Parts: sequence; structure tokens; C-alpha cells
Amino acid sequence: MQAEIITIGTELLLGEIVDTNSAWIARELTRIGLNLYYTATVGDNLRRVSEVLANSLRRSDVVITTGGLGPTVDDVTREAVAAATDRDLVLDEGLLEEIAAYFRRRDHPMTSNNRKQAHLPAGARVVHNPVGTAPAFVVESGGHLVICLPGVPHEMRYLMEHEVLPMLRERFGLTGVIKSRVLRTCGIGESAIGALIGDLMELANPTVGTAAHPGQTDVRITAKADGEAEALALIAPVERELCGRLGDYVFGADRETLGAVVARCLVEAGRRLAVVETVTCGEVAQAVARAPQGEEALLGAIVVPTCERLADTLPLDGAPREAGQPLADAAAEAVRRAYGAEYGLAVVGPIDPGVPDSPPVHFALSGERGRRSLPPRRGRSGVAGMGWLVHLALDLVRREVLSLGDP
Amino acid sequence: MQAEIITIGTELLLGEIVDTNSAWIARELTRIGLNLYYTATVGDNLRRVSEVLANSLRRSDVVITTGGLGPTVDDVTREAVAAATDRDLVLDEGLLEEIAAYFRRRDHPMTSNNRKQAHLPAGARVVHNPVGTAPAFVVESGGHLVICLPGVPHEMRYLMEHEVLPMLRERFGLTGVIKSRVLRTCGIGESAIGALIGDLMELANPTVGTAAHPGQTDVRITAKADGEAEALALIAPVERELCGRLGDYVFGADRETLGAVVARCLVEAGRRLAVVETVTCGEVAQAVARAPQGEEALLGAIVVPTCERLADTLPLDGAPREAGQPLADAAAEAVRRAYGAEYGLAVVGPIDPGVPDSPPVHFALSGERGRRSLPPRRGRSGVAGMGWLVHLALDLVRREVLSLGDP
Repeated sequence: MQAEIITIGTELLLGEIVDTNSAWIARELTRIGLNLYYTATVGDNLRRVSEVLANSLRRSDVVITTGGLGPTVDDVTREAVAAATDRDLVLDEGLLEEIAAYFRRRDHPMTSNNRKQAHLPAGARVVHNPVGTAPAFVVESGGHLVICLPGVPHEMRYLMEHEVLPMLRERFGLTGVIKSRVLRTCGIGESAIGALIGDLMELANPTVGTAAHPGQTDVRITAKADGEAEALALIAPVERELCGRLGDYVFGADRETLGAVVARCLVEAGRRLAVVETVTCGEVAQAVARAPQGEEALLGAIVVPTCERLADTLPLDGAPREAGQPLADAAAEAVRRAYGAEYGLAVVGPIDPGVPDSPPVHFALSGERGRRSLPPRRGRSGVAGMGWLVHLALDLVRREVLSLGDP
Repeated sequence: MQAEIITIGTELLLGEIVDTNSAWIARELTRIGLNLYYTATVGDNLRRVSEVLANSLRRSDVVITTGGLGPTVDDVTREAVAAATDRDLVLDEGLLEEIAAYFRRRDHPMTSNNRKQAHLPAGARVVHNPVGTAPAFVVESGGHLVICLPGVPHEMRYLMEHEVLPMLRERFGLTGVIKSRVLRTCGIGESAIGALIGDLMELANPTVGTAAHPGQTDVRITAKADGEAEALALIAPVERELCGRLGDYVFGADRETLGAVVARCLVEAGRRLAVVETVTCGEVAQAVARAPQGEEALLGAIVVPTCERLADTLPLDGAPREAGQPLADAAAEAVRRAYGAEYGLAVVGPIDPGVPDSPPVHFALSGERGRRSLPPRRGRSGVAGMGWLVHLALDLVRREVLSLGDP
């Protein structure tokens, strides 16, 4: 049983809006156990929409479209479905009356354009849309289903939840489920993980895949089964094996962030953190503060844009003013004392570490067991570069609080 | 001349991430005048990626793929392009050395998986990727171009800007230009702007459109012409008219951020800023610090996750400890003095202001002409909610330093 999604709208192909409908529908289809192998986007052009639809109907059992159901000339979904399934467009009197009633209730004049919305491919079943004017419909053609939904996200979601998903579950007897478990790792890259778990990545059910983010690599285990318990039972041994191989590179699972894990570890250990940051400009503090136990775990942070100015802000006890490990060490200890925290963390480097020949970024953690640091790193610019530094800094705290060794 | 985009990755079909690459590429292709008629998404499956690629090559001159270039077994783009264009995969020795050098520079061990990344379809031209490890490449097949880029957004964008777009312009003689000028406003909403400039939004060339962001509304003027000078000449009178109508709501243009404008105004006035933040957790400081003159403009910032703890961090001279305007006023003055700055800015509120019944956020600016504040605001959660608060705070500084009235 296999589905695909076609989003229709020239604005998508001009890049004016990002298609969020596909990801939302994809997640819901995954949840009910319907396989999604393809999605496509096509503009408001009758020939091209018909052609894409016909191609999808050749290979998939269910085709869900969004968009192109409005009243204007560039709304071509109705005509395209009729063409792709070799039917005529016919006026649906019941639907016409429904649309007229919608306008009467709102005291809006109904235009002749809206009449167009009451024309559907012959044999189509209307899906009533109580949250908008664009009528949705389903056409069955040679054992394949075409489900046409409006592109407005809240209308599409309403109709999916209340009409389409229940219909699909019943129709295809989808009692099965797809469950995923995501292990979050840091301190190890995607290719190194691939080398450790390559054999598991060839399993059929559950499948194992990796995805790299700045400073973090995710390992996903996805199982298909008849019920949730069976799916979890398929996942469990693979998860144990992965955790065994990846060891303490795994910092959490599913939606857990490294900031949240650090906050939780600190609170469970009865310890609190203070931070001083130059290069990351508050992002390390934010990652902890915004986590569920963050307000308890983080006493505060000091943000200073340049290393040279650190000594004006914190008493550094004669440490050198220029950037380097001694400055980071002194800053970590000074911020720990200033806030009366058990741990002081310093991330010290140039405000844009991606500029060529920038000095490296230094990390230091000061705590009850003394100092800990990382080798200095050449940073990178931008969101990804910062995310990487934030993860390195937070993992330093995690490893110290949990008494783990270096990665 | 027609292009299409294929994004590759099972995580997209599971709905785990939203595909933002397609919209970004679509916008850039529009800008250079290359027509985009289709996009597709397909999972990490060799047969399906090959099939989609082959279908795209039948109808389009240029096919751009993103994703599937990593080092693990589920990265199938190289094999799929080889299959769809009927070539072998061959080892590119130069590319292998480049990848090895990347790992040597970073002192990371190179794994045998990374060796896989040096195998390309026979005849492929390597596109050097200085911002990541995944090598990009171009294959020419029967007059059609297949351009394979990494899925990591910042790598993809870098390669598009520096390599792919210039190559496409030259190759297809895309000399016409589309120029845009974007006026950035704050303190006024999109519908209020619409009421002021509605007549200009009906122009044909240049066109005028608006786009709302958290705390900021952009007004975009876009002209099409044969050359850059002609396009700019079309834009200039419309820009003058818009600036006249929108007055000091316009804080900058094009890529200028409000943080950068605040930094510039401060430096030009010979003044410096210090910040204390609870709710925004360093984001206000960051917006100034990361701007071109930010290191000069911002002396430093203090981040405290809870209002109650402000008094432990700054000498508040007997101000009430509970959240409210008096606390914000005292914090702004205290941080100004602590850093010896001319201006002290405080943004004080709950760490997640979007929780129902949360107290409002208070803003205070302390400077040589005394105190300035905003009416308290009920905040919202998430990135957009924070962006709005950051813009409100920064505009308070901008208006004070430039001696403008309230918005």
C-alpha cells in the first residue's frame, strides 16, 4: 500500500512560500502506517498537473493533492483530476447549494467564480469542508484513490484529521503502526558512527538511519508492526545494541535536546551552572535556560562580545587579557564565583570565528573537581557553526557532571 | 529552458523535517530567470531516486538535487545519477585527496565510508565544497545538466551562490536582471502598511509587495529590466515615494538588520550599550554583538533566567524583586552603571512568555536623558515570539539614540 502527495501552486515554485503541508501530511501518513515514497510540487498549469497526477496514479494506491481548489482561473485541480482519470467535470447541485448557503450565512455575494467550485469530476465524492469554502473531494479510479484537499494549511489539516485519515485507516485496514526512536549523539561524526553501526543500517525492520546536525548526529530506528507493542519490541533490541556500540556518545533520545539533558543532570546532581560567553553570545546559556529544568540549573550568564573586555567584567586574578586557554580557564572560575555556582563554563573566542585566520575558540569548565577543557577549535560562521560550538560546550558540562571521560 | 528540483531523504517523507531547500532554490532560479515547473521529494532508495531522476531528465534541461551525498550506505545520489545517466561510478583521485586533506586539517580520522564520497559518475565535474565534506558534482547527459548538491542548507546555499547560479547564467545566457530593494520597517504592522501604500502595490514594474516577520515588516520593490542600471532606475522613484510615506518606521534596507542599525547609530553617536535580559536570554545582545560594529557598540550583557534572581546579580537599590516596570527600570540603570555604558537596556519577563496567564514583558532603557520604556507586552512562545520582543527592545534604543518620537 503506497501513497504520494502532490502540492499544487505556482507560488511554491517561485519560492514565495515554503511547503509545510507535505511534511505535515507525511507525518500523519507515517503514523497510520501508510508508506509514502514520493512527493511532488507542480504549478497552476492544467497540462502539467494532469501529467504529474497520471504518473502518480500509475505507481501509487493513494494520491493526496493540496491546493488548486479555489474559485479563480488558475485553480486547475478539478479539471486536472478529471483529465487524468478520463472523466467529465459535472455540476454537483448539492455542493452548489452548500456553497451558496456558506455565502448567505456570511452575507457575502457569491460570484460566478464560486459556481466553478461546484463542478467536480464525474463520480467524485464530496468531502464537506466546514472550515472554508474550497470543497474537497475523493475520486476512485481503477482501484486508486485521488484525494483533493485545499492548500490552506488549517483547512487541509482539519479535513485530514476528521475525514481522510479515518477513511484511509478503514479502507486499507491499517491497524499497523510505524514507530520511530531517535538516539541523539554528540562528540562523534556521522561517518564515524556509520563505521560503528554500518551492519545495523542494512536491517529491513526495524531500519536504522543517521542524520547529521551541527554538533549532533541522530540515529533513527524505525519499525513497522501490527501494533505499538510489537513495534516497540522490534526496536528495543536494536536500540540496546546501538547504545552498547555508541556508549556515552548517546546523550538522549527522541525530542530531548543536549541543553535539556545538561539541565536535568545538573538538577539531579543538585548543582548549578554559570556561563560566560564571547563567541556564542548567549546561545549556550539559552540552550540550558529554555529547557524544562533550565531556570533551576542556570544561575546566569555573562555575554561579552570581545575577549579583551572580559577582564573589565569579571575579576580574572591577573590572567592574561589576550585570548587563549589561560583566559578561558580564569573566566570559567571567575563566573563560577561571581554567581556562587558549582560549575562555571567559559566559551571564549572571536565574535565571528569563521573569518579566515581567526584565532581558535577555547572552552573551560571550572568545578569542584577542578578544571576541565577541550582542545581549542577553529570555529565556523553562521547558525551551524554556532550550533557546533554550543554542543561542544554543553557536552563538556554533561561529561563532567556525569563523571564521564573525554569523548 | 526549464529546471526542476529533487530533494532526497527519507526524513523528508517521514515528515520529520520540512523541506526549505526547495523554496530557497526556487527563489534563486526565479531571480536569474530560469523556469521551474516541478519539484519532487524521494527517499533514500536507489531504485526510486534513479527512476525520479530519469523521469526529470526526460522533460527538463536542468535537474538540481539536494541530499544523499553523505558517507553512509543510505546516501544513494551518486549511484542513482550513474544509473539514470547510464554511467559507471569511478574513483576521483583528486577528490579523494581533497577529502583526506579536509580530515587532516581537522585532525579527524578519515573512515573508509568517506572514501565512498570520492566515487562519482564517470565524466562528472566536481564542484568544490569548502564549507563541508560532502562533495558536489555536475553531470552532463544528452544536453541535460544534473547538479547534485548536499542537503545541509548552508552548504547547499553556499554552492548555489558561488558555483551553480553563475554557471547557469553563463551557460544559458540569462542576461536579463531582476533587481529587488527591500525596505525594512518596525513598529508598524503589515495591514497598516497596506493601508498607506495600497496604490503602489498595484504597480506592474516595479512591483511592490510586503512580507511580515516577527516584529518587522518588509516592503519589497522588484524591477525587471535588460540591465542593472535600468532596473535600479525603475526602483529609485518608487523607493523615494515609499520612504516618504513610511517615515521613520523604515529602519534600513536590504540585508540591514535592526541590530546592525542600532550598533551603527550607537557608534556614530559615540555611545555604548549594556543589556540585561531574562525572557530573551541573550538574543537582544546577540543581535547587536554580531552586527558589523557590534563589538564596539555593546559592552556586555547579563542573562538571568528568572526575574527573581536579578537582584542577586545586579545592585538594584531596593527596587521590588517581583517582575514589573520598577524592576525593569532599576535593572536597566544598574546594568548601565555596572558596565560604565551610556545606555542600559532591560528586557524582563518570564522565560516562556507564551504560557497562558504568564505575566507581561517589561522594557526599560536608561540613558543620559533619563528613562524610557514601552507599554508592557504579553509575549508569545517560540522563535517568532522572541523575534518580536527583540525588535521591540532594539527599536526602543534606535528611537532614543536617533532622538525620534514614539512609533
